[in-house]
Amino acid sequence: MRIGVVGLGTMGAPMARHLVEAGHRVTVHNRTRQREEPLAALGAVRAETPGEAAVGADCVLTCVSDGPDLEQVALGPSGIAETLMAGGVVVDCSTVSPTVARRLGEALAAAGGGFVDAPVSGGSEGAERGTLSVFCGGSDADVAKARPLLDAFAKTVTHLGPVGAGQAAKAVNQLFLAGAYASLGESLVYAERAGLPLDRLVEALVGGAADSWVLRNRSANVIASRYPLGFRTSLHLKDLRIGLEEAHAAGLELPVAELVARLEERLVERGYGGEDVSSLARVPRGEA
Amino acid sequence: MRIGVVGLGTMGAPMARHLVEAGHRVTVHNRTRQREEPLAALGAVRAETPGEAAVGADCVLTCVSDGPDLEQVALGPSGIAETLMAGGVVVDCSTVSPTVARRLGEALAAAGGGFVDAPVSGGSEGAERGTLSVFCGGSDADVAKARPLLDAFAKTVTHLGPVGAGQAAKAVNQLFLAGAYASLGESLVYAERAGLPLDRLVEALVGGAADSWVLRNRSANVIASRYPLGFRTSLHLKDLRIGLEEAHAAGLELPVAELVARLEERLVERGYGGEDVSSLARVPRGEA
Repeated sequence: MRIGVVGLGTMGAPMARHLVEAGHRVTVHNRTRQREEPLAALGAVRAETPGEAAVGADCVLTCVSDGPDLEQVALGPSGIAETLMAGGVVVDCSTVSPTVARRLGEALAAAGGGFVDAPVSGGSEGAERGTLSVFCGGSDADVAKARPLLDAFAKTVTHLGPVGAGQAAKAVNQLFLAGAYASLGESLVYAERAGLPLDRLVEALVGGAADSWVLRNRSANVIASRYPLGFRTSLHLKDLRIGLEEAHAAGLELPVAELVARLEERLVERGYGGEDVSSLARVPRGEA
Repeated sequence: MRIGVVGLGTMGAPMARHLVEAGHRVTVHNRTRQREEPLAALGAVRAETPGEAAVGADCVLTCVSDGPDLEQVALGPSGIAETLMAGGVVVDCSTVSPTVARRLGEALAAAGGGFVDAPVSGGSEGAERGTLSVFCGGSDADVAKARPLLDAFAKTVTHLGPVGAGQAAKAVNQLFLAGAYASLGESLVYAERAGLPLDRLVEALVGGAADSWVLRNRSANVIASRYPLGFRTSLHLKDLRIGLEEAHAAGLELPVAELVARLEERLVERGYGGEDVSSLARVPRGEA
């Protein structure tokens, strides 16, 4: 398959690498052009603009920071919509609001193209290992076209409804993680103060109702008071705000997610936004 | 082994049954005496008082509601301490504060007996199936004596330190679950409003960072808006208060656990305290 890739950040770069390794013909573009170099070394073609990356592509994978960036690379000058072939599908693995996804889907449909919102879960490790979970929204036909692309880096791909459903599902994921990460920090910092042997404790907790990916994969950060990425607190906060905005628009109050968003704002203000979300443990430690 | 059992509630009754089935010689006592009858039908001996249940016992298992009840059955009139043999060990599977556990351990030591605090995780299903996780505090010798008893209903037994360490670990478990349960409700109620296919969504979430016992085992309650036990909200609130008190005494602020305790107080006030903790989903639904 001919694939354009726009956005070679922490997630996009390993995704593009998996696409090259899977034998697809890949053209890459990144705003900071030097990030294209390692992909070019693996055999990808470099493109000057998002639009150039989309020339002749069956699918164009986008993986950028937020809604405005996504609309810029897709619909802006020298953007993807300018060159996308009829029937070509934009597969967006960024995390943006369901509202932005639906707007983009409509704009691309008007230009004769397809759109699949395909945000992922599984963090930078998942992207490196090609074991991401993908939440998809789009028509059956477009999701079928996107499938070989997604299979190159995903362990599971779940189609949840029309355009926007993937982003809504991602928002659910981030809302769920808010409480999980916050409580990981609170509970383990208490455990430390209580003098418990933390490694043995975590092993015991995993045997019961607290068993979870967060506990299995992020307790070591809290125990060591070091929060390497992982997934940036500033990005989780961005995602959480998407979920909260959508929830408020639906008339829902989500008090725990709102509290965690305020705590993450404090972390970002103190300069910890670039750390993994497990740095929420700085709150009970009195560091934020 | 000769074992006395005091307290035949939702957890204690199946524990006693597993002890009988494992071939131990079991004597049971419960404040509401008729709860002894099903155990007697399986071959257990009935005792008039906690003290009578402890006569000749190598170990006495206690599983009662709270600290005052525990101190009553152990140290009160006709209590366990009156008849416990020298070297006999009280194994307490109740959830009480580490402070109460340490006080009781000292009182029993003065009477020539041993004490192991052994609170459990895994809920009523875990007790029925004999797959509980046990957090133990006590001397190596006492924990070794308690081991055959605990093995009758536990999948894992973890010795975490001196008397009190088991209860501290249980508090950690309940602090961790506070955020997990609250976010389960908030995220799935949002998902429902967003019109997502909930069963398929949960399957997808389990493939990523949100994977957890709570999501795997309690999302069905939220989806059905029915919260059968499980684990009572009123008991989780009791346990959470233990964790919060201990944390405050250690100078820690745990804002998410504090918020969840307030939300659970609202549920209890509205008459939902007898439901499973997953009824925290009533909060975003505007029902509490």
